[in-house]
Amino acid sequence: MNKAAVTMGIDIGGTTTSLGFVDRVGNCLVEDTFPTIADDPAVQYVTRLATHIREAYEKISETHEMVGIGVGAPNANYYKGTVEIPPNLKWEGITDLAGLIQQHYSVPVAITNDANAAALGEMKFGAAQNLKHFIVITLGTGLGSGIVVNGDLVYGHDGFAGEIGHTTVEPDGRVCGCGKRGCLEAYVSATGICRTMLEIFADRREDSELRKVSPDELTSKMIFDAAEKGDMLAIEAFQRTGRTLGIKLADAVAHTSPEAIILFGGLALAGAHIFDPTQKTMEEYLFCTFKGKVRLLLSGLVGKNAAILGASALIWNELEKKKEC
Amino acid sequence: MNKAAVTMGIDIGGTTTSLGFVDRVGNCLVEDTFPTIADDPAVQYVTRLATHIREAYEKISETHEMVGIGVGAPNANYYKGTVEIPPNLKWEGITDLAGLIQQHYSVPVAITNDANAAALGEMKFGAAQNLKHFIVITLGTGLGSGIVVNGDLVYGHDGFAGEIGHTTVEPDGRVCGCGKRGCLEAYVSATGICRTMLEIFADRREDSELRKVSPDELTSKMIFDAAEKGDMLAIEAFQRTGRTLGIKLADAVAHTSPEAIILFGGLALAGAHIFDPTQKTMEEYLFCTFKGKVRLLLSGLVGKNAAILGASALIWNELEKKKEC
Repeated sequence: MNKAAVTMGIDIGGTTTSLGFVDRVGNCLVEDTFPTIADDPAVQYVTRLATHIREAYEKISETHEMVGIGVGAPNANYYKGTVEIPPNLKWEGITDLAGLIQQHYSVPVAITNDANAAALGEMKFGAAQNLKHFIVITLGTGLGSGIVVNGDLVYGHDGFAGEIGHTTVEPDGRVCGCGKRGCLEAYVSATGICRTMLEIFADRREDSELRKVSPDELTSKMIFDAAEKGDMLAIEAFQRTGRTLGIKLADAVAHTSPEAIILFGGLALAGAHIFDPTQKTMEEYLFCTFKGKVRLLLSGLVGKNAAILGASALIWNELEKKKEC
Repeated sequence: MNKAAVTMGIDIGGTTTSLGFVDRVGNCLVEDTFPTIADDPAVQYVTRLATHIREAYEKISETHEMVGIGVGAPNANYYKGTVEIPPNLKWEGITDLAGLIQQHYSVPVAITNDANAAALGEMKFGAAQNLKHFIVITLGTGLGSGIVVNGDLVYGHDGFAGEIGHTTVEPDGRVCGCGKRGCLEAYVSATGICRTMLEIFADRREDSELRKVSPDELTSKMIFDAAEKGDMLAIEAFQRTGRTLGIKLADAVAHTSPEAIILFGGLALAGAHIFDPTQKTMEEYLFCTFKGKVRLLLSGLVGKNAAILGASALIWNELEKKKEC
């Protein structure tokens, strides 16, 4: 009997690693998660990862064959297969992650960052299945982006292209986690909207239940819940966030002229609160040639394990490219 | 005797059309210019153009064969071969320029805008000959851009990608020729620096010879000459212009991660006055991953007929692509 081909998709987060086998059409067959443990050196981490892959593989190996491994990881270099000084992990210097994994499994391994994996996941299994020019914006703790031009992800000359979260909103603006000032991510992200909420409390005098919450405890979920209940200042926080995002999305359109921009991740689930001001402002700031041409879409992978699907899409793409050659 | 292959490169400006034959290595064989005449309908314009091509061709047709025609034109759509509502010409609606030219000459015709042509010219004959990821910024009356990713010009889904001149510097800033507010082009261009000069005259009290020139008569060349003589306010105008450009170039790097950015056109010739503040500010605003990796270069086509070479490079590229298929 011929075994069905599956790829392993792995998402390495600062706290949790998720993994699963995915077939050609995006079915997730076996899933698993385990603590990443940020202090663990890379070699030991990969040994633990390999054990989890083996345990998952034992469940399907009679009927399925693993043909490749795709990884979404912070600061991942697609060209070199390396992870370079990841902000949330204590891996030292430059880690040859693809090489370490291949010491355990001799199948093709490809790695990229989580936002690029998200873009590939949308293209293969989600909202971008028929699109050749689009951008995915991931709205989580930070703001990531994956840019697709002519059906290919843009990696740039060093493998790190697509850092729209670190374009500048205000040259002397908010301090960003990256050390610069005024980055988009410091305004538009789960943490960014909390900072905007505090700014609004400083600007305005209206009551809000959220004024009872300390800055350390405030979350984007609380702001969403308050907005849902009609809290005007919480609604204003989403409007300012959407406006800032809309202006920078219009900038992004002026670079690569995509047919769609896809919003992905926790903050994107705030629905019309974030969607409407983003769309309205993007349209307002689009150069005339692009007006009315760019669709703003929600991720097509909501409710699915998008991170695993994205990492899997990365390696499916590589395998298909090899076949074409 | 085998005739040597040449392409015809045509640059359609609002005032003047330039054309010339270019061989594979970038030698310009015959050049000609004639008035575009903005009021002339497209069909009549192309008839005049065809006459000029024929006259030029007669001079070399015994030894050379024209194998294709490349055109740089305002609002040109690469995919469709059309020119769509050009701002400086009174051609109505959408003009099938490639089709009109092919009624006169049955060789392959390709068209794109002047900034994209400049990028292709730099790649084939200029400063980007060994680069696969770069951006060309044209600093003339306006600010144009051509973005190259992995050796291919980015056209986007509609053929109009690369409009960095219309990204936003200040959401409620200067009125731009395009009708929006705060576009980069309104700050960084020959006209933009004149507006900045006036802003500085309003801000500051120091003397300057340029205070004797009326706003209608002020040119970027005058500001350059004053800066060369040590006029502090003129130097300040270049510094502000370079600073604004540097911040937006750092944004551009965050999108496509180029290995170099090439400055092209009249204002780029202001040398260190514009180059130094641009480079310093770009470096300051680059996301950490990109710091120290991106070279700022001057056009490799200074003193040559860059517009003709760029249009010619466009069609040479198309012919080479066809050969590969």
